[in-house]
Amino acid sequence: MQNLKIAAGQATGDFYGFWFQDSDVYKWLEAVAYALRYEPDQHLQNIADDLIDLIGQAQESDGYLDTFFQLQAPAEKFQHISFSHELYCMGHYIEAGIAYFETTGNQLALTIATKMADCIASHFGPKPGQLHGYPGHPEVELALAKLADVTDEPRYRDLAAYMIDQRGQQTPNFFAEQNDQNKHKHLTLPFPQQPDPAQSYFQNDRPVRELDHAEGHAVRMTYLLTGMAHVARQTQDKELAATCQRLWQDIVKKQMYVTGGIGATVAGEAFTYDYDLPNDTMYCETCASCAMVFFAQQMLKTTPQGEYADVMERELYNGTISGMSLDAQHFFYVNPLEVDPQASAQDPTKSHVKVQRPAWFGCACCPPNLARLIASVDQYLYTVKDDTIYSNQFIANQTDFGNGLQIEQQGNYPWSGQITYQITTTTPLPFTLALRIPAWSQANFQVSVDGQPITATLEQGYLRFTKTWSATTTIIIDLDMSVRTVQANPRVTADLGKVAVQRGPLVYCVEEADNGKNLAWLSLPEQPTFQIHPDTRGLALSQLQSLTTIATKVSAPAPDAPLYTKSTTPVRQPQAITLIPYFAWANRQAGEMRVWLNQD
Amino acid sequence: MQNLKIAAGQATGDFYGFWFQDSDVYKWLEAVAYALRYEPDQHLQNIADDLIDLIGQAQESDGYLDTFFQLQAPAEKFQHISFSHELYCMGHYIEAGIAYFETTGNQLALTIATKMADCIASHFGPKPGQLHGYPGHPEVELALAKLADVTDEPRYRDLAAYMIDQRGQQTPNFFAEQNDQNKHKHLTLPFPQQPDPAQSYFQNDRPVRELDHAEGHAVRMTYLLTGMAHVARQTQDKELAATCQRLWQDIVKKQMYVTGGIGATVAGEAFTYDYDLPNDTMYCETCASCAMVFFAQQMLKTTPQGEYADVMERELYNGTISGMSLDAQHFFYVNPLEVDPQASAQDPTKSHVKVQRPAWFGCACCPPNLARLIASVDQYLYTVKDDTIYSNQFIANQTDFGNGLQIEQQGNYPWSGQITYQITTTTPLPFTLALRIPAWSQANFQVSVDGQPITATLEQGYLRFTKTWSATTTIIIDLDMSVRTVQANPRVTADLGKVAVQRGPLVYCVEEADNGKNLAWLSLPEQPTFQIHPDTRGLALSQLQSLTTIATKVSAPAPDAPLYTKSTTPVRQPQAITLIPYFAWANRQAGEMRVWLNQD
Repeated sequence: MQNLKIAAGQATGDFYGFWFQDSDVYKWLEAVAYALRYEPDQHLQNIADDLIDLIGQAQESDGYLDTFFQLQAPAEKFQHISFSHELYCMGHYIEAGIAYFETTGNQLALTIATKMADCIASHFGPKPGQLHGYPGHPEVELALAKLADVTDEPRYRDLAAYMIDQRGQQTPNFFAEQNDQNKHKHLTLPFPQQPDPAQSYFQNDRPVRELDHAEGHAVRMTYLLTGMAHVARQTQDKELAATCQRLWQDIVKKQMYVTGGIGATVAGEAFTYDYDLPNDTMYCETCASCAMVFFAQQMLKTTPQGEYADVMERELYNGTISGMSLDAQHFFYVNPLEVDPQASAQDPTKSHVKVQRPAWFGCACCPPNLARLIASVDQYLYTVKDDTIYSNQFIANQTDFGNGLQIEQQGNYPWSGQITYQITTTTPLPFTLALRIPAWSQANFQVSVDGQPITATLEQGYLRFTKTWSATTTIIIDLDMSVRTVQANPRVTADLGKVAVQRGPLVYCVEEADNGKNLAWLSLPEQPTFQIHPDTRGLALSQLQSLTTIATKVSAPAPDAPLYTKSTTPVRQPQAITLIPYFAWANRQAGEMRVWLNQD
Repeated sequence: MQNLKIAAGQATGDFYGFWFQDSDVYKWLEAVAYALRYEPDQHLQNIADDLIDLIGQAQESDGYLDTFFQLQAPAEKFQHISFSHELYCMGHYIEAGIAYFETTGNQLALTIATKMADCIASHFGPKPGQLHGYPGHPEVELALAKLADVTDEPRYRDLAAYMIDQRGQQTPNFFAEQNDQNKHKHLTLPFPQQPDPAQSYFQNDRPVRELDHAEGHAVRMTYLLTGMAHVARQTQDKELAATCQRLWQDIVKKQMYVTGGIGATVAGEAFTYDYDLPNDTMYCETCASCAMVFFAQQMLKTTPQGEYADVMERELYNGTISGMSLDAQHFFYVNPLEVDPQASAQDPTKSHVKVQRPAWFGCACCPPNLARLIASVDQYLYTVKDDTIYSNQFIANQTDFGNGLQIEQQGNYPWSGQITYQITTTTPLPFTLALRIPAWSQANFQVSVDGQPITATLEQGYLRFTKTWSATTTIIIDLDMSVRTVQANPRVTADLGKVAVQRGPLVYCVEEADNGKNLAWLSLPEQPTFQIHPDTRGLALSQLQSLTTIATKVSAPAPDAPLYTKSTTPVRQPQAITLIPYFAWANRQAGEMRVWLNQD
């Protein structure tokens, strides 16, 4: 905020913090915009209105706004794009401005966004004298595509499309070109000069349409894909859509953790290679899981298939919200599937794996990302395509479709698998209602319509009801909420011989607080029996549904036992164990945790 | 060599290479000295004599010799000890000079060494005006202890003892003191200024007698321990000896790989914490395994216990020689227990794990270390203490003890477990002969004396024969050479549920070249049966003993199989597999390798 005040001439001083920090203010603003839709709050709205005014004053007359460059290096705007984050920050504002305009009608919020987009459009493009470039951190593409929808101005979408297709072109490579031009400058900027500007880290090593493997920095890759999928739908670009589909398949079939986490290595916070999914050194950034929801949403809007909503659900109930503590005051960047506090403390290659959520990060990208996601879950409930309403997520809600149609969902999901839909129309209305049945329940579920059990087949993961609806229809779905053990594809060597426990959409884990140290010594039998401890409808850990079962545990060796001995049949003892939902881990004292358990 | 020539005034030019590079020349010289004992070679000896002359001319009149500082920073000698390696390089010369003097009688070789030691002694010590310091990379301590033995000058031993006890003293910390003094210099030296001079990396965080955990850079730690153990014996310092014993136990019971490798992390090439022994990210530097042999030798000389010779054997047949290719032209720094070429290529945290031995390293410490070790294995055969001769290793040899006693060992170890000792005396001689029975054979071995089987009990791992020996006595030992599967202490989570295959002292491994890809999918039955393919007495891979057995292998999933599915009983197929000695891995095309195999 202070940086914006200095840029607006309301304060004096030096730029403070990371050079991409404007984006945190904008993500907060976007979260406020969504939150105000759930519950009006005039005080909060006043603060946000004042912020919009401040942003408007900080914005330069040509639409440019990036307080780092305005305060630190005004002569070097748009000259260090690979790491500058100018387009990233403005992209986040554009998203925030759209959201705030849509909630409150604040016209200035939108005007700032269109001025920014026009500023970017004047500098970037195919014309001589323009920068034939694209952002170092993709984001503005997805924001421009949103802006095109809201303003009905296809030029924003075209700018996004231009940036998408310029990316990775090598004749010349845009980042290399800027590097060359900067060679003789004495830079005092805080960001790196990359030795090789054509890097997979940036998704800049080849044109994006040639990618067949999700690569590089995971958040960059998935923000880029979100923009690509949106633009492909807007422009009906089948080749670009196929690229998105190919990379979606690569991620969900080869590079995604069971929690939805992506980014297998801390080095570059990046994707690595197919089936490389180590559980204790991974990155799995909270932001990357948020980005997978955004990407899934765009895929779903283009092609209604249950698998997109399934992945969205996997993220919403596991890898995103694990980033926040139950008291909502502490946050993870990195969401491991296996931790050992001693390893985090003493093995430098695991020092990024925190065992407790910190209260603050200098680089605070994840908390406001999670805030804007949680404040906007209503956007993930339904998609409407042609004459079909698709129900994608099970979250209690009342939705008014504006044409006399109301749908109400009731239930206690994910703790209970019974979901009641009440579809009410003021006048008879023909349309198809498609209710998603999650892949994990497709072999076993019940449906009733107005109390009559029906049998139905699934199409692309949805149960379709096509009729002319009138008055109120009640549809009740009962999902298979039995606890299941899940195995990974054997190509994932990190999970060989192990199982993860799931119930409904939730992945469970074991913690030292319940089960003692040496969680690696636990094994589940091939067909374990679980007791489900009912939830008591609260957010305290003790109120969440836990699972118990009987495992076996390796008997502890003597303290001075040798390292290596002739092999013998291992001695194991039965041990009762408790599992808690993965998202709720690390809300007690620091200790071991693991998701994948050995299986006998 | 060129750096030495420039320092000697025989050439002009700039210093080239790493600042610690003198040590490579010295280690080569030391290896030559040992090699000449096996087989005289006048041409090689002439080259070495010329080198001694050159070194003598490069040495300054006060005994100082370090070509980096002489050529690059003559005014800054001994001012950057934490990273300068001056004492490390001179220590390596002292070792080489002693070895060359002992082999050839070249007096200059020894004089250079004593002049160096005197130079160091004049600069380092407790007196006012002296540096109250110790090396950043321990080495000179063990060299000074050797020099004290050779020259019978206890002052060299006292200097080593001084450095050992100054190390880690914090009032003040010597490295911190030098850092402070250097603060205002504009350094152009190539080595780092460490932010915290009291680091476990340097074993400099506390006085060495307070250590109870082997810590920091593995080669530094074990060179330091080698010197400590030698000095403790020389000075009969029981507390220092107990420290060595404590740290020995820590390493061999908690921090050593089954191959003898040490250094569990690439970060600082360092020890981490107890039982942290990952197989695919470790360091296991060849030099560190060599250093464990040196340390074991000192422990053995102080206290004849089979466990020291057992570890020495583990190193000699596995973790040291795995550093060299069968053609002796290629070398490893890092000796992994599990490799996947894709991981090494694409996972930045495994980029240090090479899948094939390179022909050259810019930092060439390991090859000459291995050369001097292999050229001196005769020193590890016997130790003599009081009236007992201990036989520590099974290596065919004829040894003349200089008092009319000759011992000859014959056999084809490690391929055969039958070792024949012929003990011949010219006159009757009372003494005890103690023959080591390796721990892996102690439950099952046979001994005969002059053809008569005997039963005997072991003391500290040795079979003792006390008598007055005359003429020739023949003792034949038959060790248990059945193939055995070995398990790790369950606290080593990396090896849980896995076994390593050993025969005699050799650890075996599976390679992709014999067994195809996806070695992680292989499992051994609980009691596998192995076929032993006899060796043909050569060093080609095909001439070494390999093992075959029937394992099972996970059936390959369909190429587009999903990542996560409900768990089922795994489908496994029998598969014949071939194991080769670990030291001989990576002598074919690049491929997967692993030592620890899953067990059903």
